[in-house]
Amino acid sequence: MQMGMIGLGRMGGNMVKRLRDGGHTVVGFDMNPDSARDVDSLEALVAALDAPRVVWVMVPAGAATDSTVETLAGLLDAGDIVIDGGNSRYTDDERHAELLAAKGVKFLDCGVSGGVWGAERGYALMVGGEKETFEAVRPLLETLKPEGEYGLVLAGPVGGGHFAKMVHNGIEYGMMQAFGEGFATMMRSEYVDDPAATMVSWRSGSVVASWLLDLFENATKDDPELKNMPPVANESGEAKWMVEAALGLGVPTPATAAALYARQTSRGGADDILRVVTAMRAQFGGHITKIDEIATH
Amino acid sequence: MQMGMIGLGRMGGNMVKRLRDGGHTVVGFDMNPDSARDVDSLEALVAALDAPRVVWVMVPAGAATDSTVETLAGLLDAGDIVIDGGNSRYTDDERHAELLAAKGVKFLDCGVSGGVWGAERGYALMVGGEKETFEAVRPLLETLKPEGEYGLVLAGPVGGGHFAKMVHNGIEYGMMQAFGEGFATMMRSEYVDDPAATMVSWRSGSVVASWLLDLFENATKDDPELKNMPPVANESGEAKWMVEAALGLGVPTPATAAALYARQTSRGGADDILRVVTAMRAQFGGHITKIDEIATH
Amino acid sequence: MQMGMIGLGRMGGNMVKRLRDGGHTVVGFDMNPDSARDVDSLEALVAALDAPRVVWVMVPAGAATDSTVETLAGLLDAGDIVIDGGNSRYTDDERHAELLAAKGVKFLDCGVSGGVWGAERGYALMVGGEKETFEAVRPLLETLKPEGEYGLVLAGPVGGGHFAKMVHNGIEYGMMQAFGEGFATMMRSEYVDDPAATMVSWRSGSVVASWLLDLFENATKDDPELKNMPPVANESGEAKWMVEAALGLGVPTPATAAALYARQTSRGGADDILRVVTAMRAQFGGHITKIDEIATH
Amino acid sequence: MQMGMIGLGRMGGNMVKRLRDGGHTVVGFDMNPDSARDVDSLEALVAALDAPRVVWVMVPAGAATDSTVETLAGLLDAGDIVIDGGNSRYTDDERHAELLAAKGVKFLDCGVSGGVWGAERGYALMVGGEKETFEAVRPLLETLKPEGEYGLVLAGPVGGGHFAKMVHNGIEYGMMQAFGEGFATMMRSEYVDDPAATMVSWRSGSVVASWLLDLFENATKDDPELKNMPPVANESGEAKWMVEAALGLGVPTPATAAALYARQTSRGGADDILRVVTAMRAQFGGHITKIDEIATH
Repeated sequence: MQMGMIGLGRMGGNMVKRLRDGGHTVVGFDMNPDSARDVDSLEALVAALDAPRVVWVMVPAGAATDSTVETLAGLLDAGDIVIDGGNSRYTDDERHAELLAAKGVKFLDCGVSGGVWGAERGYALMVGGEKETFEAVRPLLETLKPEGEYGLVLAGPVGGGHFAKMVHNGIEYGMMQAFGEGFATMMRSEYVDDPAATMVSWRSGSVVASWLLDLFENATKDDPELKNMPPVANESGEAKWMVEAALGLGVPTPATAAALYARQTSRGGADDILRVVTAMRAQFGGHITKIDEIATH
Repeated sequence: MQMGMIGLGRMGGNMVKRLRDGGHTVVGFDMNPDSARDVDSLEALVAALDAPRVVWVMVPAGAATDSTVETLAGLLDAGDIVIDGGNSRYTDDERHAELLAAKGVKFLDCGVSGGVWGAERGYALMVGGEKETFEAVRPLLETLKPEGEYGLVLAGPVGGGHFAKMVHNGIEYGMMQAFGEGFATMMRSEYVDDPAATMVSWRSGSVVASWLLDLFENATKDDPELKNMPPVANESGEAKWMVEAALGLGVPTPATAAALYARQTSRGGADDILRVVTAMRAQFGGHITKIDEIATH
Repeated sequence: MQMGMIGLGRMGGNMVKRLRDGGHTVVGFDMNPDSARDVDSLEALVAALDAPRVVWVMVPAGAATDSTVETLAGLLDAGDIVIDGGNSRYTDDERHAELLAAKGVKFLDCGVSGGVWGAERGYALMVGGEKETFEAVRPLLETLKPEGEYGLVLAGPVGGGHFAKMVHNGIEYGMMQAFGEGFATMMRSEYVDDPAATMVSWRSGSVVASWLLDLFENATKDDPELKNMPPVANESGEAKWMVEAALGLGVPTPATAAALYARQTSRGGADDILRVVTAMRAQFGGHITKIDEIATH
Repeated sequence: MQMGMIGLGRMGGNMVKRLRDGGHTVVGFDMNPDSARDVDSLEALVAALDAPRVVWVMVPAGAATDSTVETLAGLLDAGDIVIDGGNSRYTDDERHAELLAAKGVKFLDCGVSGGVWGAERGYALMVGGEKETFEAVRPLLETLKPEGEYGLVLAGPVGGGHFAKMVHNGIEYGMMQAFGEGFATMMRSEYVDDPAATMVSWRSGSVVASWLLDLFENATKDDPELKNMPPVANESGEAKWMVEAALGLGVPTPATAAALYARQTSRGGADDILRVVTAMRAQFGGHITKIDEIATH
């Protein structure tokens, strides 16, 4: 199949490679003139594709995706298909779909998991949109996904792909936090000599065997106590969105929230909380001597 | 009434003053020769009291209380009463009670709240032990407690006083954390100009009016953003014991645990967790280029 | 001063009473013809007030407040003042303020705490808006608030009053959860005979003394084990909004979230989580015998 | 090698099979006369083994393991080896090791993961004890473990095997809770048509690919909404022990605790908390009319 790819960064670039290796024709565009782009404008990209066109948007969520979709709405024709494969919030998808639908352009949102490993392992793809549109681009999706029966799902209507990816990332947060809590507990205990080796041993036969644990072996190979890693983690938006979405749905997500909070705390988010706690303790614990300064209760 | 007080630190010293102001006769002992002690040994303390004696132990929980109780078991006579007013774990009380009971000495455990304010406000007292023993020392307890109908309870059998105090402190942790979370949220928001003044305004008429909020006003009077307070809080043992006790009873205590975890985190307890999270993210997020180093999943 | 009150339910009605007792003239309107309303339409309310008018809106947040503000924007004149004293989300306030500002009408948002006790104790008021507008209505606010120096604050610009109230309610959630965790722990323990009496004893002298604890005494007076209370609690929107706002600000609020989650869980929100846990346990724990049904990992 | 197995339940029985298939000679004993036991007493078991003997204890943790180890201490000779492969708490191991060491008998504790799948996949084994003892029984361990380089570790000194297994199970709790939170969120959302199919699609290519997710496919094959599963989960001791151990080490484990609390809550553990919350809300929210019953604050 033929496809246009907008955004040739690490993710987009690797996906183009996997698509071409799979026999597809991809015309690539990126804002960056130093990228391996085939055309130097969205207009040129659209001109280079045969109708009905398929255009995959793989640019940062938010303003960049918004403006790309808006521009595409002005350039594409009825029957063309736009796929947003970036990390957009699911609430943006309906807006994008409506904007494009006004021109007769179809829309799919596609959550993509797999990181840098996707080029080799294939990408897990979660798609939102109409079944007919999904089937129209299935050959591309089949090439991007891993071999075998898993890794591709039409999750639901427009927004469903990014909703599923958001939930996926929330789960990922919880799993990493769980491994972290176990590692940290063993690091402080005299009962376990080598926490990393112990965790790596679980890669086979244990209930917690997982791809994250496979990666953990690589991470600890030369740094078993992870001393080169900072005790700080950034957050991407998705776990936050999931906790928010669940709040609205009345679903308690304490483990996901705990994972998110651990990261926010590592970046100083709880500092003012602790200041209040310490200030109150100082008041009732006796560091204050001028007892008349406060009215008795 | 007559009583011996062992331990003349801030808490013990203030309690002696309140008792004497209330007309009781107190013989004080402390290990520290520079203290305002009346006698210089436990033997002398016991000798100075009329039988049946009442001895209040107000020394650090753990080894110090253990050895004091053991020594008292050897010095006191049947019918005497020992009150442990320190912060002992409730599980220690039964052991102490048995040790003393072997000599016919009675035992009460008494959780004491009130901090430095107790000298003026009176102390909230939670007692564990037999009703008869409790009644025997009631005149002392009535003097120590605040005026009015509240502030004194026979919570249950031996251990009940410290169990109640442990729960009390767990609640205190949760309340301080709740205030801290609110303050921190307002500190980062553009909607609230002066978070401290806003919180202080709640001292009257609001649902969160409380003694902790009264103290908060004092704490923020000269430092409304609490910039002089470190974003670190220590933990005493009691909230930890409460979370443990509740675990064993099958009662989930997520808010109390959150408050405890916030303090442990502020002291570096979560650092290794974050290292794992960051290490895993680095693996799948693309900072690793040698894809062959890890087996595909 | 003269004022119009829209909404004569429990809160609005009690506030009118307190204002009239304080010497103010209040014209009341409510949609309900059976209410103690003075006029039967918004038009009549506006006509009955002298310019510059002050109108207090005390109707349910959301659609009812939206439509009331919209109608008022069409009826009021430049220089008039609208106060939203309901439980609106702070994000609604800016929209309302802009709508009114287009007609020269000024706006204040006012979070009100105090519940049914406010009529007697006075209401804790948190206001958002311009200082000049705040001062213009100060006589009304001074009457509504409790006696003494606390209970009224200009928290910040438009939105600040409801933001502060939202945070206040989040703290309230955390405090109630903390008390609940303590009570539940004592209820299951053999160490405490009467958990309610023990908690009530903390009303004086203890660190957790608070208005909520005062209310707790009343609640447990005839039902010390709270057997007449259902183990289910509804949520109002405000704690949810606070957790969301804090998420966006990067502030971890685990205790507030725990309180919110406890309520959501009590209403079945976690049921599907438990189904997954139980299903997975059944799979690896041995309730499945046909080992060939699942591919080995 | 030759070995005695005490306890021929699902775990012990399957392990015997795997050992015999691997060429080892196993003498089995179980209290249950209907089991496939080879001997009918511990004495007979000991008599049937050549010195130095290896005896694997695979009975319920607590009293059953205690009494078995005590009996073995009286039957075995210096140089023999006892392996506790059950789910004992790590704090029991030192006691057992000392008891046996007094007779010159060596001890290993061995955490075993793998459930009913272990018979086929092999068991993940975590061992605590001395390296020399570990090496002496390595042929047995190599047979029990999965093929390949993973699945067996000498985690640390006596207690280390069960400590590692405890941490492993804590991680397992956190992972299952994370999957559950994701599933529950999707179940309530209109964006995802088939949450189970979406999760199953993640088995390949995604960051959350894991053995638990493999099992999830099997669990949802005929029941995609898990309607046949109760919204209740029991707890085994190990996650509770891990949360306790981490508390003592100063390591916050909020995700593990959240998973544990979710199970305790599902069994009614939070009911009294909600009763307090509802009772307090009723007090300040207006369901109480006799305002004089409570002292103003």
